Amino acid sequence: MTTAAVFGTGSWGTAYAAVLADGGTTVRMWGRRQAVVDQINAGSNEDYLPGIPLPAGITATTDPAEATDGADIVVLAVPSQTLRANLADWGGALPGDAAIVSLMKGVELGTTKRMSEVIAEAGGVEPGRIVVVSGPNLAKEIALKQPAASVVACVDETIAGRVAEASNPPYFRPYTTTDVVGAELSGAVKNVIALAVGMAEGLGMGDNSKASIITRGLAETSRLGMALGADPVTFSGLAGVGDLIATCMSPLSRNRTFGLNLGRGMSVEEVVAVTKQTAEGVKSCESILQLAHDHGVEVPIIEQVAAVVHDGRRAEDVVGALMGRALKNEAH
Amino acid sequence: MTTAAVFGTGSWGTAYAAVLADGGTTVRMWGRRQAVVDQINAGSNEDYLPGIPLPAGITATTDPAEATDGADIVVLAVPSQTLRANLADWGGALPGDAAIVSLMKGVELGTTKRMSEVIAEAGGVEPGRIVVVSGPNLAKEIALKQPAASVVACVDETIAGRVAEASNPPYFRPYTTTDVVGAELSGAVKNVIALAVGMAEGLGMGDNSKASIITRGLAETSRLGMALGADPVTFSGLAGVGDLIATCMSPLSRNRTFGLNLGRGMSVEEVVAVTKQTAEGVKSCESILQLAHDHGVEVPIIEQVAAVVHDGRRAEDVVGALMGRALKNEAH
Repeated sequence: MTTAAVFGTGSWGTAYAAVLADGGTTVRMWGRRQAVVDQINAGSNEDYLPGIPLPAGITATTDPAEATDGADIVVLAVPSQTLRANLADWGGALPGDAAIVSLMKGVELGTTKRMSEVIAEAGGVEPGRIVVVSGPNLAKEIALKQPAASVVACVDETIAGRVAEASNPPYFRPYTTTDVVGAELSGAVKNVIALAVGMAEGLGMGDNSKASIITRGLAETSRLGMALGADPVTFSGLAGVGDLIATCMSPLSRNRTFGLNLGRGMSVEEVVAVTKQTAEGVKSCESILQLAHDHGVEVPIIEQVAAVVHDGRRAEDVVGALMGRALKNEAH
Repeated sequence: MTTAAVFGTGSWGTAYAAVLADGGTTVRMWGRRQAVVDQINAGSNEDYLPGIPLPAGITATTDPAEATDGADIVVLAVPSQTLRANLADWGGALPGDAAIVSLMKGVELGTTKRMSEVIAEAGGVEPGRIVVVSGPNLAKEIALKQPAASVVACVDETIAGRVAEASNPPYFRPYTTTDVVGAELSGAVKNVIALAVGMAEGLGMGDNSKASIITRGLAETSRLGMALGADPVTFSGLAGVGDLIATCMSPLSRNRTFGLNLGRGMSVEEVVAVTKQTAEGVKSCESILQLAHDHGVEVPIIEQVAAVVHDGRRAEDVVGALMGRALKNEAH
């Protein structure tokens, strides 16, 4: 009998907890806020997945040690920029032999480290136990048990297989890979590309333009990933183009919606005020851009998105450059 | 001063005629029906692009020899399965030195030949003059002058460059390549994948499922294309994943809409009766499947679409297999 701890009670952490529970794993979620923990113990997460009943086999606690007691798998699903501080808070709660699964899709500001690198460094976890799950996985659809597939990446294929086996209810198909870098980078960069696609849509551009931005965004992701040592095959798969398409086409995507509001003429502050949250791509795009600069990789779409979300430029002022540069160099 | 003839008065032929005219080329369109020719001469194509005024510099005729008189570029944009008969009808009207541009996205039934091959064979045109234009190019958006980009493919790069130069108004960016096979095959197969995505949507599946089918569809296209000698890079570009995404996400796509109706439970005959037309993918999927079988390439999504449109199976009966098989073998 597998036991898993899930740290974080957002929509994807909760949906993945349901995947594990529906696959026969006993799941204990950790949350900071007692009110959310109480809701989950009562059978749903109304803040993030309202109206969707959670499967039996999920309980929640505010005590990290209680969550991880005896856990074979520990899933980390907190906001990317809070991971390092959270790892410090949780102290010795991460068991020394569990597989540590990252659902997080960001790059740390300042250090430009991917989440698996932060887990290794700040959590003292060997890379052979760190697993990244990434794919076309809009949380709400999965919580509704609509069919989806995902990539489970770990440098140790046995550990990836163990996590895949625990994540295998009828509606969710996990595929293993050893390309942690490719899976993880794709997941982070796609949020930034989704901001650009949302901006284009908000400015009234059509599907030809959006498809072109997605295509050039995939090329940027691949270039950066290959500079970091990723396997190019990953970018043609579910964690690469699959996740990128799902995020860029779905009204459920927070990053796309955030971009849409920017494209309609709102400032970042105005969007945050209206939506009460900052999309992951807004937070990570500065560190992803830094990572690209550090490796000498050209990322024109990410540059333009960063100009809007960090330098205060309006979407309509950068979109010409965005379309123009996005469409350049088909052959490269 | 470049002069072009455009054979065919459908939506994409007409929109591309406008691209050429807006780029400074004099365009004469050929159509079979006098009523459509008269409309175009009066400044619009109400059957296919209603309410959108055509640029000056486009005239139309029912006489093939008049259309091609002095033409530097001849654009062919008739339904794929009628091309061979049309080439015979037009007789000696194709000038012996013009670039012959194919906008058609199908594979001939019976012969399994791509359109450029039919042009070479039935039109007696050397491959060095045959150009394929393909990309994320929904006709209506282009007719509305929304920004788009496309790939212009010819084994002779000089000829590709000449066509690209003539197709370069501010809203349309052409990129040249020598990979005719890759560009042409991507254009044909994407219609079949769009049928599958439409079916999934009609059956109530979400964006995770649709993105997974698109991802696996891209893999099928790449496998088949590489077996035919295409450059794998093409499938990651505008003519490959770009066109596939635009076609699969847009409500303007006839193939996606046709699949949507199949997914909602209609038979092929019922969809044709309602929409008054057969989508290109419905006509070509049998010959594309034959092409795959001839080259020993596995194409599970195309197989399932063919089972629905040719063997009379209902979409709901194949969609389990479609999702299951579509998601298998991430690593392959």
